[in-house]
Amino acid sequence: MNEKTLVTWHNHSVDRKRGCVVWFTGLSGSGKSTVANCVDAKLHQLGEASFVLDGDNIRHGLNASPELLEPIHGGEYAKRFGLSFGPQDREENIRRIGCVAEVFCSAGLIALTAFVSPYRADRNRVRDLVSETSTDPLSMDFVEVFVDTPIEICEQRDPKGLYKKARAGEIKGFTGIDAPYESPENPELHLDGELPVEELAEQVIEFLRSKSKLRR
Amino acid sequence: MNEKTLVTWHNHSVDRKRGCVVWFTGLSGSGKSTVANCVDAKLHQLGEASFVLDGDNIRHGLNASPELLEPIHGGEYAKRFGLSFGPQDREENIRRIGCVAEVFCSAGLIALTAFVSPYRADRNRVRDLVSETSTDPLSMDFVEVFVDTPIEICEQRDPKGLYKKARAGEIKGFTGIDAPYESPENPELHLDGELPVEELAEQVIEFLRSKSKLRR
Repeated sequence: MNEKTLVTWHNHSVDRKRGCVVWFTGLSGSGKSTVANCVDAKLHQLGEASFVLDGDNIRHGLNASPELLEPIHGGEYAKRFGLSFGPQDREENIRRIGCVAEVFCSAGLIALTAFVSPYRADRNRVRDLVSETSTDPLSMDFVEVFVDTPIEICEQRDPKGLYKKARAGEIKGFTGIDAPYESPENPELHLDGELPVEELAEQVIEFLRSKSKLRR
Repeated sequence: MNEKTLVTWHNHSVDRKRGCVVWFTGLSGSGKSTVANCVDAKLHQLGEASFVLDGDNIRHGLNASPELLEPIHGGEYAKRFGLSFGPQDREENIRRIGCVAEVFCSAGLIALTAFVSPYRADRNRVRDLVSETSTDPLSMDFVEVFVDTPIEICEQRDPKGLYKKARAGEIKGFTGIDAPYESPENPELHLDGELPVEELAEQVIEFLRSKSKLRR
């Protein structure tokens, strides 16, 4: 392999269609993950390449807690890079997820993310990152989906029993109880979280279709 | 949306074929990125879903330096999460890339990574992560590719002028000069980095085909 061949290939990046990032935000129990997974299943049926990023696949790997990192990487390392619930940790949590979603988007996939992501500033930084790296200024590469469900309903559902713990004071800084949720001001999609999942997922699919994000 | 629907959908994850991680390792200038990009282009032609993770798309986002993070997130945050060239930083660099590659693999893609990744322990941790999350014990989900190019050749090529800087003492801890490179002991593929890129890329494609990693 001579240097000329090397240089030639380096410029020869694959011409691939860019995907998009569908960023679900809302309270715990609002239905973000449920709707995202339903959209994912529908996209799969339609032959689209998509993937859900959520706590289940991120919290044990990329955004592992200090407790998970410590046995493998040592205490000092775990304290530095492991993510707990401090303000810096929460910010870094969303930053890393945003970066991964952007890479998925570059790879041509529809990345569906389902995280509470309560702060406007954090979400807007992801929006900026995805928009800045877009190759087509007219293409909508970042779709913010606000899953708007009244907190009373979320608390009734309480699928993981977190509201109960937060009310009992066992969890501090819980969004909606003793930490704020900043609603999106201009989300691309505003979903009524009290409607059936199927209907909400269809709204997302129709929106993506209207923005030419589906291949067929 | 009632709780029953919620639960139903949560269990309804998409049944998708798992991809794999093709982990290129070797000295700076060995040809890792070049071969990975050539493999990516060939896979694209074959209709396979693949993507290259390398310094170009990781260093400005997920593994940004403190200098890049500081203006946006502040100094303390940048110092904690930004990645420089200390031992912890290098370890975290590979850990994050490994986690992202694993997620790509779960999403059904062939993730091609091109990083020097000089330490055996770091590479083996990624191997363990990818193997542990595999759903099929017989499937080869982690393919370590050693791009074996003599350092004299790498230094002659010196595409980024880094060896020159390292020799001049302007870069400290440069792999192969004043920091070690630990060769893989049992890589799935051992490439002779002096052969033409096309030939090396074909070797990778043939290997993936032999392990049933190509759909057609």
